[in-house]
Amino acid sequence: MEEIIGILAGIFTTIAAVPQIFRAWKTKKVDDVSPKMFLVLTIGVSLWTVYGAMKQDIPIIITNGISTILNITMLILIIKFRKK
Amino acid sequence: MEEIIGILAGIFTTIAAVPQIFRAWKTKKVDDVSPKMFLVLTIGVSLWTVYGAMKQDIPIIITNGISTILNITMLILIIKFRKK
Repeated sequence: MEEIIGILAGIFTTIAAVPQIFRAWKTKKVDDVSPKMFLVLTIGVSLWTVYGAMKQDIPIIITNGISTILNITMLILIIKFRKK
Repeated sequence: MEEIIGILAGIFTTIAAVPQIFRAWKTKKVDDVSPKMFLVLTIGVSLWTVYGAMKQDIPIIITNGISTILNITMLILIIKFRKK
């Protein structure tokens, strides 16, 4: 049961960044998006991945690992589309 | 050691939403922010809080509980400031 809730939680927190990535990609506008949020979030989910590894907790490792990749993708889009 | 990494991870993922909340509050603009992201994120961190409770994992409970409150705050700001 914990595993199912953990996997569901991970799916939601992982896919959360996807609509933001699509929106930025489509509009090519990131003015109202906080770069600090995605920087801090990337550090945070990276640390959650380490935490999961130390506790040998598979849902935490997989979902936060994917989150890390998606948040880095959004950071790249912010750098690419921000007003110079 | 796991506890320290978990608390650090939680602090980062928790404070991540704060700069986005301040930015939205200051500029009163949320056009480029994805409401879907914050909706899905709120569901996700709520489920992580439940997961933490089931596993009796204090860092997961506290940090995701605060994250839930902050993401709801951002959702309210998105509804308040979005263009009609």
